[in-house]
Amino acid sequence: MIFLEVIAVRMTDLIEKKRDGGVLSAGEIRYIIEGYTRGDIPDYQMSALCMAIYFQGMNERETTELTLAMAASGDTVDLSPLGELTADKHSTGGVGDKTSLVLCPLVASCGIIMAKRSGRGLGHTGGTIDKLESFPGFSVEMSRERFLENARTAGFVIAGQSGTLAPADKLLYALRDVTGTVPSIPLIVSSIMSKKLASGAHTIVLDVKTGSGAFMEREEDAFTLAREMVSVGKLAGRNMAAVVTDMDQPLGYTVGNALEVREAIAVLRGEDVPDLKELCLTLGANILVRSGAEKDETAARARLERCIADGSALGRLAAMVKAQGGDERAVYDTSLLPLAPVQRTVAAPEDGYVTAIDAKGVGHVSMLLGGGRATKESAIDLSVGVVLRAKVGDRVQKGGELAVIHAADGESAARAEAELLGCYRFSAEMPQRPPFIRGIVS
Amino acid sequence: MIFLEVIAVRMTDLIEKKRDGGVLSAGEIRYIIEGYTRGDIPDYQMSALCMAIYFQGMNERETTELTLAMAASGDTVDLSPLGELTADKHSTGGVGDKTSLVLCPLVASCGIIMAKRSGRGLGHTGGTIDKLESFPGFSVEMSRERFLENARTAGFVIAGQSGTLAPADKLLYALRDVTGTVPSIPLIVSSIMSKKLASGAHTIVLDVKTGSGAFMEREEDAFTLAREMVSVGKLAGRNMAAVVTDMDQPLGYTVGNALEVREAIAVLRGEDVPDLKELCLTLGANILVRSGAEKDETAARARLERCIADGSALGRLAAMVKAQGGDERAVYDTSLLPLAPVQRTVAAPEDGYVTAIDAKGVGHVSMLLGGGRATKESAIDLSVGVVLRAKVGDRVQKGGELAVIHAADGESAARAEAELLGCYRFSAEMPQRPPFIRGIVS
Repeated sequence: MIFLEVIAVRMTDLIEKKRDGGVLSAGEIRYIIEGYTRGDIPDYQMSALCMAIYFQGMNERETTELTLAMAASGDTVDLSPLGELTADKHSTGGVGDKTSLVLCPLVASCGIIMAKRSGRGLGHTGGTIDKLESFPGFSVEMSRERFLENARTAGFVIAGQSGTLAPADKLLYALRDVTGTVPSIPLIVSSIMSKKLASGAHTIVLDVKTGSGAFMEREEDAFTLAREMVSVGKLAGRNMAAVVTDMDQPLGYTVGNALEVREAIAVLRGEDVPDLKELCLTLGANILVRSGAEKDETAARARLERCIADGSALGRLAAMVKAQGGDERAVYDTSLLPLAPVQRTVAAPEDGYVTAIDAKGVGHVSMLLGGGRATKESAIDLSVGVVLRAKVGDRVQKGGELAVIHAADGESAARAEAELLGCYRFSAEMPQRPPFIRGIVS
Repeated sequence: MIFLEVIAVRMTDLIEKKRDGGVLSAGEIRYIIEGYTRGDIPDYQMSALCMAIYFQGMNERETTELTLAMAASGDTVDLSPLGELTADKHSTGGVGDKTSLVLCPLVASCGIIMAKRSGRGLGHTGGTIDKLESFPGFSVEMSRERFLENARTAGFVIAGQSGTLAPADKLLYALRDVTGTVPSIPLIVSSIMSKKLASGAHTIVLDVKTGSGAFMEREEDAFTLAREMVSVGKLAGRNMAAVVTDMDQPLGYTVGNALEVREAIAVLRGEDVPDLKELCLTLGANILVRSGAEKDETAARARLERCIADGSALGRLAAMVKAQGGDERAVYDTSLLPLAPVQRTVAAPEDGYVTAIDAKGVGHVSMLLGGGRATKESAIDLSVGVVLRAKVGDRVQKGGELAVIHAADGESAARAEAELLGCYRFSAEMPQRPPFIRGIVS
């Protein structure tokens, strides 16, 4: 009891130190994270500290120490039995983001093991696990031994989040979510990077989205986040790269679980889906170069292209689906994937150029169709979603095909059409588009 | 459960609104205080909001609404059976502050009823109730009926804090104390004024201390606090005045419970204790004028002086002590008050002018002697303390009397002497002193 009182008093001093713009030492940060994870430091002190951090920030050393303390708060995965060529990827989340479904088998086919943990979707962004469950029988539940075994044999494995990795982040994120302290760069960096460091991969690439459909709407904030994450990862001894990419409109042409799997398979078959393929090649080349598997980006991209052309990347996807209990035939015959009974074509309401497609809005349409979760407990319909036929910069004619809605019934399709049309903006002038890849931080 | 989730979501929105510099509406503020008092809004959201308020502040309307919501969170005292001439006084706390012991009987002798609730001391500041308990048998425990009856018959009454008045403040203060959110003007204003408004007096005077021994060290902060409290009180329909006074050194010449009672009695007997008497006359005159009992300050001060000269102020103190079970003979014969067995004279270590006396330091000496509480549970020795013989601006000669320490034994007296000497600063030059009363806000 007296011991807990001493902790509370010391924590109050540390809150005041940060509130007044002070720099917390490594020992102080460990003290906070260990005490909070144990339950000795109460939520009400932690939330006050998070709000002080929101206003006063943290310097690079504090952010690194916070990340390391959070990574050390639970189990850490030892991937060393798999050798040095292990990689992981994280995206800050966007609409239509099926990058992992392409990137992981592609990189695996070049000999880099992707041993990844992913989350389920919530709200307007879909989760990689939900998408993979479009393969009948697919499962992300497995023992740690099976996880390593699958990584070794299939070249990549995707499991669900484990509560024993970085438990401090799990506690802290739930607290930040209800105390207005989510949008703080050092807290975001430590949340993402603590889990990545605990997951054990030697090379980590990050896809930081920016634009109206992204968490980091302003490009400069996205670059700040990217730089800080790369810096923390390097200080922790990992090979790091971050790509800042556009999320002003959905990525690729599909939004919805099985629809996105089809698009990912199309890229692995050699189709050039604009933006999506470029993103996968950029992230993949960075993994190959940073991990030392290839000497430069040109060589790395050529190798990735070869692995697509010779079918080995697609083969890796099939191997992984099979290893995790799914029906791998669907990789080669996508008619085996779920398909919605109703497909409703949405016509362009006017002539002109598409100047904007509200990514969050399209994600919301997909959620309303049943493809996303409103709450953690919601069941989702893997077959529904939206296929965009025109993206920003494309010219459309009134009555021409703008999009196709995949729905469970005609009624929900009609409702979705009205909302989807509200996501589009048109103009007689051709819009200027910034490059899709805004920059690379390494 | 769903209801509580809705509250949590709405509270998150309100935290974010304040975090982003928004203005909370009256309805939003009532929602927060009512929800928090009921226990529906958890501490961890409230502490995050307090930290956001610390950084973003509140405008005058928000502060007023917050104060009113906190005042309405529990019982409110109806003093209307006592008529319009009721007054209350609050001090932000200082060392050697025995003002209430003089002011209350003095004002009561002019026909203004002081129905006051006071706290006990903690740390280096003493509480009025502790001081009054120097009168053998004195008690602050009484029913609400008895409280009103004593106010009517004795002209004033001092009871302990009641947990049923402004319970939101009690909860919130305990939370702020351990989350680094104490020093925020709107939170201080609402904490002080909610209790004062709930206590029901028509006229409220405030003594806002400034200087090294005060909570508000900077004079401009003290004036800001004074202005905001006066403004909130007026908007709530009360007669208001605030005096900003010096707390760079202890008030008067005594620090310690029974010693301070003796000094208060000396003023009521007509002795001019510098600063202390002036403060009591200023506060008293403001009560008489603001409440409409006297037309201007000159008339008010003359009346107060008459009530001291004719003994009626001292008589009121005796009546109140008797009404609350104490031995009123001690008002006229202070040898009946507790007296420490050891009195140790502290000699000036050098020739020169006293340029500073660290008020917090002297308070700490008194606490170490046993006269103050280190924790809420500590028992205190009413007899011990310090009598200053030289204050700032006084000239002393080496070996001359600087102070007298009242202690339970020689050992503690010797320790206290060393620490007390560390509180004094001397110089060959006569120091410039700012006026004791820095200004009046009304």
